Amino acid sequence: MSNRSAIVLLSGGLDSATTLEIARSQGFELLALTFRYGQRHDMEVGCAENIVRNAQVREHRVIELDPGVFGESALTSDEIPIPKGRGSSIGAGIPSTYVPARNTLFLSYALAWADSCGALDLFIGVNAVDYSGYPDCRPEYIESFERMANLATRSGVEGWKITIHAPLISLTKAEIVKKGMELGVDFSLTTTCYDPDPAGAACGECDACVLRLAGFEAAGVADPITYR
Amino acid sequence: MSNRSAIVLLSGGLDSATTLEIARSQGFELLALTFRYGQRHDMEVGCAENIVRNAQVREHRVIELDPGVFGESALTSDEIPIPKGRGSSIGAGIPSTYVPARNTLFLSYALAWADSCGALDLFIGVNAVDYSGYPDCRPEYIESFERMANLATRSGVEGWKITIHAPLISLTKAEIVKKGMELGVDFSLTTTCYDPDPAGAACGECDACVLRLAGFEAAGVADPITYR
Repeated sequence: MSNRSAIVLLSGGLDSATTLEIARSQGFELLALTFRYGQRHDMEVGCAENIVRNAQVREHRVIELDPGVFGESALTSDEIPIPKGRGSSIGAGIPSTYVPARNTLFLSYALAWADSCGALDLFIGVNAVDYSGYPDCRPEYIESFERMANLATRSGVEGWKITIHAPLISLTKAEIVKKGMELGVDFSLTTTCYDPDPAGAACGECDACVLRLAGFEAAGVADPITYR
Repeated sequence: MSNRSAIVLLSGGLDSATTLEIARSQGFELLALTFRYGQRHDMEVGCAENIVRNAQVREHRVIELDPGVFGESALTSDEIPIPKGRGSSIGAGIPSTYVPARNTLFLSYALAWADSCGALDLFIGVNAVDYSGYPDCRPEYIESFERMANLATRSGVEGWKITIHAPLISLTKAEIVKKGMELGVDFSLTTTCYDPDPAGAACGECDACVLRLAGFEAAGVADPITYR
C-alpha cells in the first residue's frame, strides 16, 4: 500500500465524516477505521457504514472492543445519566461522557494498521474548541501521541515520519459544518446524539446535540437529521 | 481501587513473570493483563493463567484482539518462518518477529484500565539489551509513552502522575533470571519459545530460546522448562 494511504478514524459523527473528506481533499487514499465498544449510541457504527458506502474508501475495518475495557462512562453505561440541560457538563471539567483513554486506544489501533501496511498518515476528528473537557482532544495530547508513534514503529525507526492529523482541532462547530458543506459531506448520514431514540431521532438536549445544533445555526445551515 | 494498584502486562514469558514479582516487591496490589492475538505460541496465554493462579493477583483480564490488526509478522502468520540458527535476526535491524505497534496497543489497554480504576502505575517487561531490534522496547519509547499517557487521561489532567515502569529495560537476560530467582519466580510456569511443539516443548533454536538459554547459562541456573 502506498505512503499516500491514510487511516481515518470514522465514528459516524459529523466531525469524523468531515475529517474523512478533508483527508480525501488532500489526495490520500482512504482507509477507514470504526470501533464498536458498547456505546449507547450504537447507531454510530451504522452511520459509519453508510458514510463509507456513500464514499470512495479503499477499506473499512470495524473493530469490536470489549466494552469492559473502558470502565464506567455515561457513554457506555446505562447506570450513569447522559447530562442534559442544567446537568450539562460543557465547560465544567472532565464530563461524565469521558471514556478513559479512548482516543489513545483508537489511535493505537490505527497506528498498528498503519505500520503494517506502510501508511504514514492518521486522521482523527478531535476538536478542542467547543468541548475542551476531554484531555485526549487537546493539541498537546495529539503532538505527544505523534512523538510516541515515531519512536514506536518500524516506519519511525526507518526514518519515515508518521503524522497525526487533527484538522478540526482548532475549528468551531460552525466552521466544521461550513468546511463539511464545502467538501460535499452528506450530514444526513451522520449521528451526534448521545441518547437517540430507537428510531434514531436525536434528543436535541445532550451536550453533543446542543453543540451540533448551535454549530448549524451559526453556520446558517439547516441540520438535515431528525430530532424528536 | 487504590492508587497503589498496578497494571502488569503479563504475556506468560520469563520477563513478564519476573516483572509481576518486581511490582509485588514494590508493594503494589496486582492487576494482570494478558492478550490473545493469534500468536503462534498461544500457550503463552495458558502460562499467564498458571502464573496468576500461582500468585496473589487481585484481577486478571485476558483480552482478545483481532489478529488481523497487526498485519503480517512471523509471530502471527504461518506464512513467515520463525528465524532460527543462521536465519537469526539478533542484532540485524528490526526482526521479522516484530509485531507492528504491539506494545503501544498493549500499553493503551493498560492505560484505559488504569484510568478507569484510578491505578497510576503500569508495568511492562520490555528489555532493550539483548534484543534491541524492536523499536517499542527502547527507553526513549517508554518515556514518550509515559509523557503521552499523562496528557491523555483524567489522572494526568487532575494532577496525578502516571508512571510506566520497565524494570527490566537495562538488564541482561542473565540478570533477569537472577532477579527472578531472588523473588521466587517459578520459571517452570513460563514459556519463551516462538515455535513450541504441540506438547509445549521449546525448540531451543529460535531467537527467543537462544537468548533464554544463554541467560540461564550465564546466571548459572538450570532452565526448568522442557526442550525437544
